[in-house]
Amino acid sequence: MRNPDYLSLYLVLDPELCGGERGMVETARLAVAGGASCVQLRAPQWEKSRWLSCGRALKELLAPLGVPLIVNDHADVCLALDADGLHIGQQDLPAAEARALIGPHRLLGLSVSSEQEMRAVDASLVDYVGVGPVFATPTKVDAAPAMGWGGLARALAVKPCPAVAIGGIKLPMLPQIAASGADGAAVVSAVCGQPDPRAAAAELRRCWDAARQQPGT
Amino acid sequence: MRNPDYLSLYLVLDPELCGGERGMVETARLAVAGGASCVQLRAPQWEKSRWLSCGRALKELLAPLGVPLIVNDHADVCLALDADGLHIGQQDLPAAEARALIGPHRLLGLSVSSEQEMRAVDASLVDYVGVGPVFATPTKVDAAPAMGWGGLARALAVKPCPAVAIGGIKLPMLPQIAASGADGAAVVSAVCGQPDPRAAAAELRRCWDAARQQPGT
Repeated sequence: MRNPDYLSLYLVLDPELCGGERGMVETARLAVAGGASCVQLRAPQWEKSRWLSCGRALKELLAPLGVPLIVNDHADVCLALDADGLHIGQQDLPAAEARALIGPHRLLGLSVSSEQEMRAVDASLVDYVGVGPVFATPTKVDAAPAMGWGGLARALAVKPCPAVAIGGIKLPMLPQIAASGADGAAVVSAVCGQPDPRAAAAELRRCWDAARQQPGT
Repeated sequence: MRNPDYLSLYLVLDPELCGGERGMVETARLAVAGGASCVQLRAPQWEKSRWLSCGRALKELLAPLGVPLIVNDHADVCLALDADGLHIGQQDLPAAEARALIGPHRLLGLSVSSEQEMRAVDASLVDYVGVGPVFATPTKVDAAPAMGWGGLARALAVKPCPAVAIGGIKLPMLPQIAASGADGAAVVSAVCGQPDPRAAAAELRRCWDAARQQPGT
């Protein structure tokens, strides 16, 4: 199993909060300079030529830094970009089909929103799970109901692979997320659209790293 | 170049007009019994697990009949289904990327909406073009402006590969479409949602075949 440090501060780009394609690349640049460890391209409303042009700019930025670029939903875009990974939801291509398409070496992430979905994860196919939404989020209109701290803990207790918490996550929640056993925190609005995305990411990353060093986590 | 007879009556399934996944498969079954020569799965609002389940049912129906199943937009779904082809628009994955993903043997179709776009088609990558919309259509909200008969004729005059006309096409238009030099007609609402899709397809196919046999076409 790959070292899950790339999950520490997982940035999911939001086209609207970032102000479009150029804003997404600039947000990624600043966030990674601040400490984001992974970047997901997610733009459900975009046509694929735009996914490709934005993804190419992101890859050019991230590859030299060793920061994984993960493509949401579209395995074809992931392959066309030669991206580092693909992230799928429960209603997207099933994990077996997604893994067959992207090959054995790319990262495959899967969203889970309950203990039951976590128990169904096949860790021979999936590299990491995104668990959430922990709290209500306005940045994903089709999200499942919020799990809360109890739901997060119950799901993480049975995780068969590294897990990143997602959904409404802000700085003060990071210690509890780390204590719950997550391998990282995924953020959208805590970085995208912030006045200083670099500072926001840096503060989140410092807080996460400190929380992970607490005894018992 | 493959014999373009599969383009004669090209059915594009519409989830709303057909009444969902089961209605799409049933519409395809009836339309092919009537004479549809090709079926495209197009469901821009669907998540991919649904593309996959509907596509599998369509493939099970169509493969034994030798009727090509073509997937709109999503090369990953096309590959996961092992479908016969992929259809892309001008804003989707570019033809070179699409061809690289689907391999040399699957059909690749491309939408063109002007003589200029037709001139830009690379027939070493693309098997056929869909030219249109010839007339205004309510079944594709992001369609380009209607080309009319003059625009269709100008585009077809420079086609580098077989071409199927699409967009608001009804039975009485078929003779003129054939006379314009198209290799087929693509229909949505002329079959999907009709009281008797089999009879509708049969009438369209008879009319098309008759029009193609006219001198000078």
